Amino acid sequence: MADIIFYTNPRSRGQIVRFMLEELGEPYETVLLDYGTTMKSADYLAINPMGKVPAIRHLGADGKGRVVTEAAAICAYLADAYPQSQLAPALPDRAAYYRWLFFAAGPVESAMLDRARKLETEGQQKVMAGYGSWADVMQALDIAVSGGEWLAGERFSAADVYAGLSMDWLAMFGMMEPSAPVAAYLQRLRARPAYQRAKAIDAELGAAAGG
Amino acid sequence: MADIIFYTNPRSRGQIVRFMLEELGEPYETVLLDYGTTMKSADYLAINPMGKVPAIRHLGADGKGRVVTEAAAICAYLADAYPQSQLAPALPDRAAYYRWLFFAAGPVESAMLDRARKLETEGQQKVMAGYGSWADVMQALDIAVSGGEWLAGERFSAADVYAGLSMDWLAMFGMMEPSAPVAAYLQRLRARPAYQRAKAIDAELGAAAGG
Repeated sequence: MADIIFYTNPRSRGQIVRFMLEELGEPYETVLLDYGTTMKSADYLAINPMGKVPAIRHLGADGKGRVVTEAAAICAYLADAYPQSQLAPALPDRAAYYRWLFFAAGPVESAMLDRARKLETEGQQKVMAGYGSWADVMQALDIAVSGGEWLAGERFSAADVYAGLSMDWLAMFGMMEPSAPVAAYLQRLRARPAYQRAKAIDAELGAAAGG
Repeated sequence: MADIIFYTNPRSRGQIVRFMLEELGEPYETVLLDYGTTMKSADYLAINPMGKVPAIRHLGADGKGRVVTEAAAICAYLADAYPQSQLAPALPDRAAYYRWLFFAAGPVESAMLDRARKLETEGQQKVMAGYGSWADVMQALDIAVSGGEWLAGERFSAADVYAGLSMDWLAMFGMMEPSAPVAAYLQRLRARPAYQRAKAIDAELGAAAGG
């Protein structure tokens, strides 16, 4: 059995974790779950009481199983658990890394949700919302991709997997018109073999599930 | 000049970073900024083009200044930049640490924003929203505080600063009725000297600013 068990659905944020796992290059076993049925089964709730995917169960070097949920957390966890992958910068050099990981996990997610529901923040809500306005988020993404070839600098990292794929989704779903720097960044992201493998695997699983 | 410059407003998410800095115990210099005026000044935009607080500027051991924004990112960054503080678990042991940091930064923030606007997720939105429903978030927080004395286990960490203070706000603003385990956790959190120092400093600054 592989040290990493990956609980997912091909049509979920599990796609982010798939990309991370393909970048990592360690063996993993996939367990497919369906919304509303197996995702809420007693077997799975024993692993993740939140009944959500993605989740991973990782058998660490000490033999203790660890469950991680939240796509961004899984990316950050795996990068640290496998330091030889060099998917996270050294400890003193994680300013941009954490900045964009958390920016994507927080403000971008909130802004996407509002955008999908056609809600706009106004006045005091902009402060409360954390993300400010949609325009603020777009401006921040321009800053994010302008610090180097990748979000944390010159080396690809788990921040690119997570925040990069968020941008990729925004572009693919027509929720944003990528600026020139964002478009160039997305081109680099999509050219990665791990990105392409992950896409192909989930597309095939999605089609097999009927659809 | 201190190695850490802290840009904040006493009535902002900067309170989270203040708590983190007080836990860290390293010298820091505070720069107070006002919404709409100094926060959007050319001087500050040169540091944080997003014109938002909190932000920190950290002079690392290599003498390169690093800017970090996003309260959660600042907490995670400082814990790693000062490993002797032991405010982050060892690399292979960060499952719960990242899980709750990102859960608070993502789902909890989105859910709080919707709750404050009296919006409820329904049907397919629950999947899209990431946080599911308010009840799901409450259940997850119960799980979060049940893994040990602190969120990442037996040792207090930056996850407690960030996610703990989020829970503290939910309780203080009357947005949630804490369950018994959450109430006991919040009692431990509020008993920390750094929590109390941070509160006192920001309360005094807020009062001095007129109000």
